[in-house]
Amino acid sequence: MSTGTRPAAARPGGRSARVRDAVHRAVTELICERGADRVTIPLVASRAGVNPTTVYRRWHTVPALLAEVAAKELDADAPPPPTGDLRADLAAYAEWDLAHLSRPGGIAFFRAEVAADLDERKAGLRECLRQVDDALEAIVAAARAGGEADPPPVEEIIDRVVAPLYFRVVFAIPGTDARFARALAEEYLDGRA
Amino acid sequence: MSTGTRPAAARPGGRSARVRDAVHRAVTELICERGADRVTIPLVASRAGVNPTTVYRRWHTVPALLAEVAAKELDADAPPPPTGDLRADLAAYAEWDLAHLSRPGGIAFFRAEVAADLDERKAGLRECLRQVDDALEAIVAAARAGGEADPPPVEEIIDRVVAPLYFRVVFAIPGTDARFARALAEEYLDGRA
Repeated sequence: MSTGTRPAAARPGGRSARVRDAVHRAVTELICERGADRVTIPLVASRAGVNPTTVYRRWHTVPALLAEVAAKELDADAPPPPTGDLRADLAAYAEWDLAHLSRPGGIAFFRAEVAADLDERKAGLRECLRQVDDALEAIVAAARAGGEADPPPVEEIIDRVVAPLYFRVVFAIPGTDARFARALAEEYLDGRA
Repeated sequence: MSTGTRPAAARPGGRSARVRDAVHRAVTELICERGADRVTIPLVASRAGVNPTTVYRRWHTVPALLAEVAAKELDADAPPPPTGDLRADLAAYAEWDLAHLSRPGGIAFFRAEVAADLDERKAGLRECLRQVDDALEAIVAAARAGGEADPPPVEEIIDRVVAPLYFRVVFAIPGTDARFARALAEEYLDGRA
């Protein structure tokens, strides 16, 4: 744990960080065991061994807490860095994106972000979309640097690759596996060529 | 409660139906006023003028209640019937789908379905996906009857038209309007031709 010149929001070190880590762990365990909609602040507090008041005071609502854990999860499991080979990079991203959404609790976290209250939801969704945008921008920039004259617009990649994967995981459409994800990306690029 | 020759789930007529209608109306109003995540059974009961116990006994959870109202809403606002002109029908469906998701409370209902607990969620999502499937199957069948030799597979239409619209509404991506929805469908078909 750092001693923190960072802003207070990062809450580095000490008791505060220990509480945060225990609460995050409890949230992840409870989501995997019960699903996000069965997670309550008293349950989280009990599992984390902290006072419910502490959790209410710091996170206010379950959706806010879930959104924070989801953001941390995404930091820990980052998409693969682009190599400059657009076709390989986009296929790898699609496979990662699907795995990321399909991990234990993955869709529960996504549901939690989507279900959070309006202001939190907007912030959570913006953050979620910003991370998708950043990853795709990096792939496109690497492709351009690697000599790709006409890489696709990020928004088109979202429509053609990211959105179908989200939809398919949310709606549990059969056959949505790594091979499907890679083919979705590859066939999209082939169609543009 | 009805005397009911129909299965209990249908609950036709009488006090039971009046309670159901009042509760459904209360749910819709509260979703539009506050967002789905702020809807609670005591609030719904109070707005509907019924005892909370009645609501708990009949619907058990808020997600179950929201899923029922969402299914009824979809029945009331059905997609336009297909004409046999694939391009026109798919563009009209895309426009309807976007409007349906974007209506007041539309995404709140979608969020509610997605956030419902696992068993209810599966049922709600299956039902939601079944309705999408049925509408697209009808479009494809009408196109085939109208002489279209190679109409697209429904699953591909879901990936190319439905999924991006869902994703764009959920993530509030700017520029996702009726013109965008129609163009999404038309460009998809043009790309196949």
